[in-house]
Amino acid sequence: MNTERMRSLGEKRSVIRELFEYGNKRKAEIGKENVFDFSIGNPSVPAPKELTEELCRILTEESPLATHGYTSAPGDFAARKAVADDLNARFNTSFGPEHLYMTCGAAASLTISLSALVKDGEEVVLFAPFFPEYTVFVETAGGKPVAVPCKWPDFQIDFDKLAEALNEKTAAVIINSPNNPSGAVFSEESIKKLGETLSAAEEKFGRKIYLISDEPYRELVYGGIKVPFVTDYYNDTIICYSWSKSLSLPGERIGYILVSPENSDWKTAYAGICGAGRALGFVCAPALFQHAIPKCVSMTSDISVYEKNRDLLYGALTGMGFEAVHPDGAFYLFVKSPEPDANAFSEKAKKYEILFVPSDDFGMEGFVRISYCVSTEQIERSLPAFKKLAEEYF
Amino acid sequence: MNTERMRSLGEKRSVIRELFEYGNKRKAEIGKENVFDFSIGNPSVPAPKELTEELCRILTEESPLATHGYTSAPGDFAARKAVADDLNARFNTSFGPEHLYMTCGAAASLTISLSALVKDGEEVVLFAPFFPEYTVFVETAGGKPVAVPCKWPDFQIDFDKLAEALNEKTAAVIINSPNNPSGAVFSEESIKKLGETLSAAEEKFGRKIYLISDEPYRELVYGGIKVPFVTDYYNDTIICYSWSKSLSLPGERIGYILVSPENSDWKTAYAGICGAGRALGFVCAPALFQHAIPKCVSMTSDISVYEKNRDLLYGALTGMGFEAVHPDGAFYLFVKSPEPDANAFSEKAKKYEILFVPSDDFGMEGFVRISYCVSTEQIERSLPAFKKLAEEYF
Repeated sequence: MNTERMRSLGEKRSVIRELFEYGNKRKAEIGKENVFDFSIGNPSVPAPKELTEELCRILTEESPLATHGYTSAPGDFAARKAVADDLNARFNTSFGPEHLYMTCGAAASLTISLSALVKDGEEVVLFAPFFPEYTVFVETAGGKPVAVPCKWPDFQIDFDKLAEALNEKTAAVIINSPNNPSGAVFSEESIKKLGETLSAAEEKFGRKIYLISDEPYRELVYGGIKVPFVTDYYNDTIICYSWSKSLSLPGERIGYILVSPENSDWKTAYAGICGAGRALGFVCAPALFQHAIPKCVSMTSDISVYEKNRDLLYGALTGMGFEAVHPDGAFYLFVKSPEPDANAFSEKAKKYEILFVPSDDFGMEGFVRISYCVSTEQIERSLPAFKKLAEEYF
Repeated sequence: MNTERMRSLGEKRSVIRELFEYGNKRKAEIGKENVFDFSIGNPSVPAPKELTEELCRILTEESPLATHGYTSAPGDFAARKAVADDLNARFNTSFGPEHLYMTCGAAASLTISLSALVKDGEEVVLFAPFFPEYTVFVETAGGKPVAVPCKWPDFQIDFDKLAEALNEKTAAVIINSPNNPSGAVFSEESIKKLGETLSAAEEKFGRKIYLISDEPYRELVYGGIKVPFVTDYYNDTIICYSWSKSLSLPGERIGYILVSPENSDWKTAYAGICGAGRALGFVCAPALFQHAIPKCVSMTSDISVYEKNRDLLYGALTGMGFEAVHPDGAFYLFVKSPEPDANAFSEKAKKYEILFVPSDDFGMEGFVRISYCVSTEQIERSLPAFKKLAEEYF
């Protein structure tokens, strides 16, 4: 490995983390209720009561040796079967446990998939804005991230720019819809055209191009929006999932990789994923939470507050004159900075004790991410401060 | 990454896993009680009752958002403090939370440490016999494993052979004492001399050489044997720990890395570890189990059965004429094959429904590993079968 790279990754202060720590300091100084912290994307609604009950039931009723023992490396059979059955029921698919590999969360799903499928020097297309760790994970696999900006204002795919980015070195394309940080959801039209574009590129360049769909926010959509299920539109698809957001379990590290059986070469991809999980030191996904999956696979936390927050915040901010992507999912509002430098905008907001994240680290300049996974009451109390901030510009 | 390597790692059948599956097949055919399966190193005693109670208490009494939320990447402060305090009380050390990094188990501890500290093409010394995944983890980090066989019959370090292996490319030396598969514990004399040897090599070759001590079996020692605590003997030490064996939690993936503050450059090493954890996709160690650590850090499962099993099995097998390493720790008996090919010996044992693992994958030929983390009753019932096996040779 590149030990310098590791050191530098370890030493680099994340902008989000710095804002979060600044917020904690301000809260200690002026009172928690006077700081409007929208910096962190942590679920604000608790895990479902039924999940807590199931965890306690397993702990008290089942054999501790079975509960805490190693599962097979691809994951407990019952958990994988439950996931396959749930997906098949919801999306009319035909997955089996053999297409699923349980992981320590979405980050693990991504590093394992990329390490399995990307050769040194190959390229991985990311649609900007994107979760900043994508570039880290692609580089760990020896790949080169290639950013393709989405279109303002709907943040759908810019197919002209995508066509320019695809070439004989393209090993994979990562999508994240609903998106962190924009909240945008790719429409069925976008996904359909993406599938066609990638199929044509596979033919043109004579190689596999994997569509890696990172879906931790799949269940967090509002207003009856439907998230197209990507295996329906493209065969060489890998889905990376995590229950971090849907079950409010970000610290427990539990998710999965699904290798679409529509891929003529899925067994090879699956073997590579098993090998990469082993090579990176994952062994198996946390066992207790795997055992809780069969009971809880179809549940979500009560996500209705996120929709309420979205409506409140989007309405209020656009009413004040701000421009923002209309977020159909996740729990982020992506607001266009009213001055060219989003960092200056973010600094100015601090004067009013408002904390949000400038977009530079998300691979796109000129925006800020406002995480609305907070109490509705915090949003209500913050609006006069946002109003004062708006008055500096409009 | 090398996608071929990943595929091949994913497709390769592990000898241990194959034996285990053969055992399950035989159990279905002739009855569980008639198969003497010593193939797998899974704890056979349950996690402590107090740990189960603490997990249920956290789940029912604490806030789910705090319980299941992200911890900081290096780990929950209270968990790290509890580990530091426990080590300081037991080993008279001066560690703080800042020297600890919580991980998803020992495999993660190793891949993260190696990726942080080993540059492409550098060498990592392993003392044979060793846990087979060590070579996989070293190769993931871009390093080259260099095996140094231990001395028969006590399986202490062969310092002449070690001296031959060290050179200007040596980035690290991994020890695993108590050892899987031999059960040997390196004596204080061995560890002291190892520290001196590595210090001299650092001076001679003008570079850091890390001693990476993989200690999942640290607490599993018998007959009052003391495991020397390695930071006392060498400054540039990294300890990789896991609660898999001591608390019987192998599937939960919870452990830590300790970077010795005696290393003049420990902050750089620690930053590299933070960066590698991030680059490999670990995010944080499973949160619920981190939160249970403060209460349970000093506990172990009831490991007395392992000592009883060791005495019974070692006594009986050596009495029959087999030669074996006297195991002072872990839960493995390493028996010299009475014929040159340990695979043939292992096959012959199957005739008597005895399953144990030939040593080839552990980097040493001519032995078998017998895992005695089974019921004492299984050992008792197996002895007539072992007797018949012995009679084929002696």
